[in-house]
Amino acid sequence: MVPLSPQLDVISPIDYRYSDPELRGYLSGNAMLREMLAVEVALVKALQKVGICDDPTAREIEVACQHITPQEVLFDEQRIHHDVRALVNCIRERVGDSAKPFVHLTATSADIKDTAYILLFRRALDDIVIPDLKKLLTILIGLSIREAETVQIGRTHGQHAIPITFGFAIAGYVSRLGSAILALQRAIDQLPGMLSGAVGTYAAASLLLPKQPRTIERYALEILELQPVEHSTQIMPREPLARLFSELVVIAGILANLADDMRNLQRSEIAEVGEHFEKGQVGSSTMPQKQNPIVAENIKSCWKIILGRMVTVYMDQISEHQRDLTNSASGRTYPEIIAYVGWMIRRSTELMGKLGVDKERMHANLVLGGDYQTAEALYVILSQLGHANAHAKVMQLVYLARANKSTLHATVEVDPEMQPFVDQFSDVHRTILQHPEQYLGEAKRGTLEIAERWKVEFQL
Amino acid sequence: MVPLSPQLDVISPIDYRYSDPELRGYLSGNAMLREMLAVEVALVKALQKVGICDDPTAREIEVACQHITPQEVLFDEQRIHHDVRALVNCIRERVGDSAKPFVHLTATSADIKDTAYILLFRRALDDIVIPDLKKLLTILIGLSIREAETVQIGRTHGQHAIPITFGFAIAGYVSRLGSAILALQRAIDQLPGMLSGAVGTYAAASLLLPKQPRTIERYALEILELQPVEHSTQIMPREPLARLFSELVVIAGILANLADDMRNLQRSEIAEVGEHFEKGQVGSSTMPQKQNPIVAENIKSCWKIILGRMVTVYMDQISEHQRDLTNSASGRTYPEIIAYVGWMIRRSTELMGKLGVDKERMHANLVLGGDYQTAEALYVILSQLGHANAHAKVMQLVYLARANKSTLHATVEVDPEMQPFVDQFSDVHRTILQHPEQYLGEAKRGTLEIAERWKVEFQL
Amino acid sequence: MVPLSPQLDVISPIDYRYSDPELRGYLSGNAMLREMLAVEVALVKALQKVGICDDPTAREIEVACQHITPQEVLFDEQRIHHDVRALVNCIRERVGDSAKPFVHLTATSADIKDTAYILLFRRALDDIVIPDLKKLLTILIGLSIREAETVQIGRTHGQHAIPITFGFAIAGYVSRLGSAILALQRAIDQLPGMLSGAVGTYAAASLLLPKQPRTIERYALEILELQPVEHSTQIMPREPLARLFSELVVIAGILANLADDMRNLQRSEIAEVGEHFEKGQVGSSTMPQKQNPIVAENIKSCWKIILGRMVTVYMDQISEHQRDLTNSASGRTYPEIIAYVGWMIRRSTELMGKLGVDKERMHANLVLGGDYQTAEALYVILSQLGHANAHAKVMQLVYLARANKSTLHATVEVDPEMQPFVDQFSDVHRTILQHPEQYLGEAKRGTLEIAERWKVEFQL
Amino acid sequence: MVPLSPQLDVISPIDYRYSDPELRGYLSGNAMLREMLAVEVALVKALQKVGICDDPTAREIEVACQHITPQEVLFDEQRIHHDVRALVNCIRERVGDSAKPFVHLTATSADIKDTAYILLFRRALDDIVIPDLKKLLTILIGLSIREAETVQIGRTHGQHAIPITFGFAIAGYVSRLGSAILALQRAIDQLPGMLSGAVGTYAAASLLLPKQPRTIERYALEILELQPVEHSTQIMPREPLARLFSELVVIAGILANLADDMRNLQRSEIAEVGEHFEKGQVGSSTMPQKQNPIVAENIKSCWKIILGRMVTVYMDQISEHQRDLTNSASGRTYPEIIAYVGWMIRRSTELMGKLGVDKERMHANLVLGGDYQTAEALYVILSQLGHANAHAKVMQLVYLARANKSTLHATVEVDPEMQPFVDQFSDVHRTILQHPEQYLGEAKRGTLEIAERWKVEFQL
Repeated sequence: MVPLSPQLDVISPIDYRYSDPELRGYLSGNAMLREMLAVEVALVKALQKVGICDDPTAREIEVACQHITPQEVLFDEQRIHHDVRALVNCIRERVGDSAKPFVHLTATSADIKDTAYILLFRRALDDIVIPDLKKLLTILIGLSIREAETVQIGRTHGQHAIPITFGFAIAGYVSRLGSAILALQRAIDQLPGMLSGAVGTYAAASLLLPKQPRTIERYALEILELQPVEHSTQIMPREPLARLFSELVVIAGILANLADDMRNLQRSEIAEVGEHFEKGQVGSSTMPQKQNPIVAENIKSCWKIILGRMVTVYMDQISEHQRDLTNSASGRTYPEIIAYVGWMIRRSTELMGKLGVDKERMHANLVLGGDYQTAEALYVILSQLGHANAHAKVMQLVYLARANKSTLHATVEVDPEMQPFVDQFSDVHRTILQHPEQYLGEAKRGTLEIAERWKVEFQL
Repeated sequence: MVPLSPQLDVISPIDYRYSDPELRGYLSGNAMLREMLAVEVALVKALQKVGICDDPTAREIEVACQHITPQEVLFDEQRIHHDVRALVNCIRERVGDSAKPFVHLTATSADIKDTAYILLFRRALDDIVIPDLKKLLTILIGLSIREAETVQIGRTHGQHAIPITFGFAIAGYVSRLGSAILALQRAIDQLPGMLSGAVGTYAAASLLLPKQPRTIERYALEILELQPVEHSTQIMPREPLARLFSELVVIAGILANLADDMRNLQRSEIAEVGEHFEKGQVGSSTMPQKQNPIVAENIKSCWKIILGRMVTVYMDQISEHQRDLTNSASGRTYPEIIAYVGWMIRRSTELMGKLGVDKERMHANLVLGGDYQTAEALYVILSQLGHANAHAKVMQLVYLARANKSTLHATVEVDPEMQPFVDQFSDVHRTILQHPEQYLGEAKRGTLEIAERWKVEFQL
Repeated sequence: MVPLSPQLDVISPIDYRYSDPELRGYLSGNAMLREMLAVEVALVKALQKVGICDDPTAREIEVACQHITPQEVLFDEQRIHHDVRALVNCIRERVGDSAKPFVHLTATSADIKDTAYILLFRRALDDIVIPDLKKLLTILIGLSIREAETVQIGRTHGQHAIPITFGFAIAGYVSRLGSAILALQRAIDQLPGMLSGAVGTYAAASLLLPKQPRTIERYALEILELQPVEHSTQIMPREPLARLFSELVVIAGILANLADDMRNLQRSEIAEVGEHFEKGQVGSSTMPQKQNPIVAENIKSCWKIILGRMVTVYMDQISEHQRDLTNSASGRTYPEIIAYVGWMIRRSTELMGKLGVDKERMHANLVLGGDYQTAEALYVILSQLGHANAHAKVMQLVYLARANKSTLHATVEVDPEMQPFVDQFSDVHRTILQHPEQYLGEAKRGTLEIAERWKVEFQL
Repeated sequence: MVPLSPQLDVISPIDYRYSDPELRGYLSGNAMLREMLAVEVALVKALQKVGICDDPTAREIEVACQHITPQEVLFDEQRIHHDVRALVNCIRERVGDSAKPFVHLTATSADIKDTAYILLFRRALDDIVIPDLKKLLTILIGLSIREAETVQIGRTHGQHAIPITFGFAIAGYVSRLGSAILALQRAIDQLPGMLSGAVGTYAAASLLLPKQPRTIERYALEILELQPVEHSTQIMPREPLARLFSELVVIAGILANLADDMRNLQRSEIAEVGEHFEKGQVGSSTMPQKQNPIVAENIKSCWKIILGRMVTVYMDQISEHQRDLTNSASGRTYPEIIAYVGWMIRRSTELMGKLGVDKERMHANLVLGGDYQTAEALYVILSQLGHANAHAKVMQLVYLARANKSTLHATVEVDPEMQPFVDQFSDVHRTILQHPEQYLGEAKRGTLEIAERWKVEFQL
């Protein structure tokens, strides 16, 4: 099999299958180098601002950083086995002797890398993930409004319960996803930056600026639009990252739940919704008739990929004393979490944006179980009318109706004990008991209120 | 071996070893029943307030709820295999026929259980966990202030780096734990309540109050001091719980990190701190001399117990359609997470409250590695003085010093290339290079600022 | 709410809900004390056998061990904070001065506890879990044979594929569970014992028996029917436990898969099987008509409980140097894994032993999708007859048939391109194409072979 | 920053940092295509062998498979959204009309993919991982023999316990890793293959070979040297994979434990071993003196990466009915587990193969704590001589010795109660009590026996 595909000469499916070039542009090794350079530039600008070096020197270093290639960094790292020092060497190579001393001055590698990761995460989330989430939310809001009155049987335990509307079900996802976007945004906003030196004491900076050594960090982070962390060892505390990635896993859980619902509603026996199936698309390599809910399945499967990843993130909270390096390799896998969630969002948008809704089938399923779904309404009405054992009585009536293959309605009508209550039924009572599809409570109103609330919240 | 111990006739160590009666009082099966009854009482009071039942009826049900015993509920559940309906039956048994219809009216089991769990979690956290966290924080703040100037070698990769103070290291935990308390409090405050009926549509309530069915929920939750959830299926969305338990796992991670540091500082070769060892306590059943850091080890081990538990919590986000029951058994294990974290906090308080600090040993370890720890200061000073390759030069000097079993200081003094720079060294430079223990940057000031900030934040 | 229930004064649901007294008898704190005493007795018998102490002494210690109560051990542990030494003290209390020196002699606590845990796990598994698994397997085998010819539509992606038989589906679980029982038995058989002293070097034993210090371990373990571990530190390597618990999690996964299938087959729209519903059982506290698949749901939920537990087990593989204690608290939770799996097995037995199978409904669902399920057969037949593009052609025919709301069969008959092939169809071909329920391949034969194989394997 | 590095235009560190081209050659997307083609070729050869197609046809398809390029497959997949069908199309493109019908005939996609994954895993493990493990084992055996008599203080709870030898500590890893290699090999050997058709019933094959449809699978798998699975749905049961990957995670745990021990032995205060540090290697970008244990840290960090991955593998055991696709994306990440473990093995080989051992420092640390480490020996000797409370007595003596800053030995000599016992001390007793480094039990002998056993086992 020759020649091999460079695209496939990778092991992780995130690199050959579940990400697009746009996302890779934000999350790749190249992107990380770019962010590390951004921190080095911010640092030297801060050094200039506090008077440690002059403006031409800072400018010389900035320009050098613009011309660094990943190749030269990789090459030097081979030699010295230290990625950040390799980067520093490459910058130093590109400036004159007078500028060399100011490259990376006062910083430790972790200052650069921890802050660069924050920039990387924030940029990918702000530029791609949050906007994509809002796009998905917009689609869900539209769908919920459109189907606000489409009656569907509610299912608990996989069993028919009482009716809802399909729009109301979707409104649940609007509400959950809307809240999650807010929580994610909050987690992003709380990501700090750091330039505190070898063990977090600003010791090196204090040699240059004995009175206010933290000023260098403050100026550099202002350029990067980050708040300085309150305390660090050599590294930033990992809690802000744990919160961020937990929220991403939470979002993935919401999408997986939605995907599961869509999968189940596509079952041959239910068939209330349908994934868009492209012309020419093949469902099975051996069964030509198959049209499978593969988008929903794919979303669910990606959720399983990232679920266990939080274990790694939580473990990385522990770093001995002023730091050990055991969260270095593991920390490099975090961008994958963002990439998988980003993929799930886009797949969810594809799924829900083109979702077919079969109202006839929804209605057919609704009436499939006859009128037993009115049992709750009957029990509540009887209770309201003063029946002391309404729940047990209705259980008995349902049992009878089932045994006689009759309706609950008919069984009530002929039950002697029920007569005094039947006589008191209001018109509304009768309507509900005969037309279960009208037993909807706040389904419609609730749907529209939720849709409106989140439209306003995000100005969609 | 007779007779058996009832205390030991349980399988989970949380029930025979890692919880005390106080915590069990908040988190046990008994406690859950108490909270479920609280919700049923709030519901009937709300029914009364909107005019569905009269005041004596509501009062009769409230009194009945005060007299329910767990035994009768368990007994009825055996018969009908439904825990909430069993509870409802027991309440109904204790009231007259006129009150019976109003017990549990409009509610589904999940309304009661989901809301009761929220009450249970909130109460245990508000009454025990948060106050215990603040107690621990107070101890850490005190320790950080007391040891703000106690110089200790900073350790990165387990290797001596540059100095910090022990108080500064503790201040890191103050900062991390303080932030986590705020985040936990926020997660608690966002826990909602719910009384929305069988599939979240308020359908049953709408039979009683067609115009404003949600009023019943609102009144009931006002009594319980909870905000209603925006949307529910039969159950509440699980995201607020995922956020809550994630924050608890995050707190456990901070405590485990602290415990690890204390374990390592107690190593025979380091011995900078010591756990309190009680008179009569045995360290080993075979080695009579042993005094082991068992409190710190226990904290770390409990962290391992709960780390994997988040997997369960995240999985419980998925519930098919209007709910399936696959998060029921798993949901019952959540109180264990609180119990383990509560245990870890108390153990941490015990550990840190009685921690012995050996300043002499800290000093002895500080000087163990000679003056190589001044290498960074030397590199920064040389850079500041315009040396274009200071980092490489200092690496070389350290290499020479090690080879000659000399000090870095002495090696610099005799290096010809260094002379022009040595001549420019300021007094401050010389002091730092000869007294590494003064190369502390902001360690002291930072410690005191952090201590002050969190004292004020929580009025400790 | 008074008085409280002692049964409910626990936090873990394994202790108030998901275990029965029999299982607790094997897995409780009491049971662990019993096993620890068994190891101490075996040790002193071995000391006697090698001539370190005399027979009356060994006998005196054995008798003492029979009379220890958990209470006295707990009481002494309060004082000395060491559980094994407390046990040793209690034994010593009950023997004369001449016997005292031989209690626990040469052992370290971990010898006693690690070996006792092995005994505890093995006994619970051998006495309860393995027999229960075989009972469940017997039920599944019976069901697979009984339903070997009951045609059911095969479902892939939740979509109708081609037919199987219900017995064949069950045979899959027979095969998976049978293999898992073998693997579990193997993992049990490989659990070792250990009495190697403080750091695994048999140093203490070598004072008593300089030539053959390991003889004491060998004799003691022979009594306990265990092989000595090849190497230990203070503790046994954790790999045999990781393998054991992984296999239990694997078994839980099989049961969860079975439960999911049974849940889905009970969906209102599918309704091919039904859980046994007891007289008087309540399905919903508000919807009197509900009959929910709660046993299957409970099994699935317990799987979620234990899934994350393996994270803890894997983490416990790491113990620093000759041991640290950070796997002590976590190790105490392992019996819960056995208890949950034990519970899942019993619930599965209950579920499958009383499962209702609705053959009419199976047939109705089978024909629901018309004859499109013959598409694969048609494609294979056409290929066999030399059609070069059979898959694409059949996709097109299905598309046409769907568009015309016709059958695939009828569409083929009128397609001109198909005529030469139709003419070559054999009788078998025609039968299969017209009677999809006969397109079963090896379903029946395979089912019976699998049933027979596992009956023979375990002599069921 | 231009131009970008193609090597870095990936997200996962397994693709840009923690794997080498050799491993990628076994585990990449290209490799998977190669294995899928191998299965298609085996299938058509089996079809030929049973007489379904002729030899030139089979040969034509085999040759076509040798010329397929990944690019053409990717291109067709874009169009039809089905990876296996795209592969089939590409093969069909390259053969004449008479051969086209026999490509993929009787197979479903999962037959090809599940079997191809087995081939991929097996080849990577057999060719790389197992040999690399044996290389590492050889190094550990050599080290254990070389250091079999190098006395080192045993450490439990991070505290000095009693002595071992460094070789004995390494022998523990020999034993654990040796056992794990056997277990891994067993898990590999139990991986089955499958060609059972759309729902596992061999229905398609039965159209071609009504009597013995399984013969096609048998012949094809013989070519691939795999046993057929006993039962499948559309997919193979996942338990063999769960067992395989669990064993890989177990191996990773052993390596992480070893790495942790080496990390801790490199602490500045302990410094008993040292990682090889290359000329020119940089330890810190700001502290020129640093030499950090980065290889050991990297190994530990990779363990954290894969620990949570087992959650995904266990979850993939569940597939609804005859399969759902929710284990497809997740299944594609399994090769990463092998890649990370492969990386960890190579890094461990690098770490241990060049490990520096500082015997002087080991001896210095051994005597650091004086002679308190003889406390166990004293307690055992006293017990042997009939002292009824030897453990408590020795605790008291240690307490006294510590209080008086004296040795245990001297304290015993002057204790009146001890005199009768001291008088009975044998020469061996005296030697051990005065020379703790001789209290080694079976450390040396055990080390050599273990080394020998595993050399023989694997013929190393």
